[in-house]
Amino acid sequence: MRIARFMDGKGIVRWGIVEEEEIKETEGLKGPYTGEKYPLKGVRLLAPAEPTKIVCVGKNYVDHIEEMDGEVDQLPKEPGLFLKAPNALADPGEVIPYPHFTNEFHYEGELAVVIAKPMKMVSDEEALNYVLGYTCAFDLTARDAQRKDLQWIRAKSADKFCPLGPWIETDLDPTDLGIKTEVNGQVRQNSRTSLMIFSLKKILSFTSSFMTLLPGDVVLTGTPSGVGELHVGDVAAVTIEGIGTLQISVGH
Amino acid sequence: MRIARFMDGKGIVRWGIVEEEEIKETEGLKGPYTGEKYPLKGVRLLAPAEPTKIVCVGKNYVDHIEEMDGEVDQLPKEPGLFLKAPNALADPGEVIPYPHFTNEFHYEGELAVVIAKPMKMVSDEEALNYVLGYTCAFDLTARDAQRKDLQWIRAKSADKFCPLGPWIETDLDPTDLGIKTEVNGQVRQNSRTSLMIFSLKKILSFTSSFMTLLPGDVVLTGTPSGVGELHVGDVAAVTIEGIGTLQISVGH
Repeated sequence: MRIARFMDGKGIVRWGIVEEEEIKETEGLKGPYTGEKYPLKGVRLLAPAEPTKIVCVGKNYVDHIEEMDGEVDQLPKEPGLFLKAPNALADPGEVIPYPHFTNEFHYEGELAVVIAKPMKMVSDEEALNYVLGYTCAFDLTARDAQRKDLQWIRAKSADKFCPLGPWIETDLDPTDLGIKTEVNGQVRQNSRTSLMIFSLKKILSFTSSFMTLLPGDVVLTGTPSGVGELHVGDVAAVTIEGIGTLQISVGH
Repeated sequence: MRIARFMDGKGIVRWGIVEEEEIKETEGLKGPYTGEKYPLKGVRLLAPAEPTKIVCVGKNYVDHIEEMDGEVDQLPKEPGLFLKAPNALADPGEVIPYPHFTNEFHYEGELAVVIAKPMKMVSDEEALNYVLGYTCAFDLTARDAQRKDLQWIRAKSADKFCPLGPWIETDLDPTDLGIKTEVNGQVRQNSRTSLMIFSLKKILSFTSSFMTLLPGDVVLTGTPSGVGELHVGDVAAVTIEGIGTLQISVGH
């Protein structure tokens, strides 16, 4: 099932289930059908989550650690996490203004998870029972600020640094999905989720060991190799097998 | 004016204005009076904010940089920020369970600000116009996790790592307030907000240069010297001139 959050022609935010070329509206996320239908191409899709926090994993693909000059013979023993705040969300198709404070604005295409129910101190084995579904994300990054700032808040959680979408796919095995990022139609990242150092269930279990995850919270699972710069006018798209494509562009 | 968020005897969360020994209930934060009154000692005070994010400043008092082995001849040129998520909030008087993942659980007493209205790209001169008021906070910290983790999320944003309260004082000049932290009645931190490296208006202006602050968002302004460990059974209190005292204790 594909759960979408969208804005109708009058600017009203709605939720619904995507079926082929139309969206069947529901009463909020996961509510019953209202009976209303909207053509998929006649609405504006929105980031399909309203999180209280966005938890991200750094250094979760060996090839990305190599390209960032990390030492792969000393892989992390626990997931390396960081936070984005909800101000970072952006919608599918959105034009992201080139941030004024960076000269190295990078894309990182990632598999994202939306949490279904409160999650605290949950084991690896039980972790996936707390997942509502899966979507695509960009972990947009000001690489120069990441290097020089005390922590990564400006580098990772500036406004619109977390485009999310196009919808939540609920019926999916996340363990071996193709993930591909293209910039202006050229493939830049091309990997599989099976190459993560920490599996999704390990990431969720570890996070829940110190922090309660709430319904709608979003977890980004790390980026494979091939990260690189975005410039004004670029169009970037991340495509994940079984989900679809999240596309954004960069404006002034 | 002192704005409190509290729970009545039936477990209902309410807002109100503290006047001497009673709270005059309002319709939500900043709404009109409902006509109901509650005795201050008959309710449970709650963290007086419902933020979408908590922005904190590291290394904002010279004496604290010295005690953390920083080089004070190379002071930061911009505020060093980091994030806590709303799961970190804790209420006045709350018993904070000693976190299972640390052996160095530290208090840091701080002045906190609650934001009144959406704030983006605001100048230093205008910044304080976006402040609703001031309260006390502990930036609880797992110092060992802070040293070893990729970023400070577990060290700073675990559940209940941001006690806040007892209320929001709206009529206050934040530029030169006494701030004191006591543990089991012994003074451990004793400083003045005039000794901040970056003033509150500079912190808010800088944050708003890349991140939209929303009503209810909370900003912690850094801790003076004298940080140290908490153990099970300890009672810690931070008192700020013109606001009051936030007290917590540490449990199993």
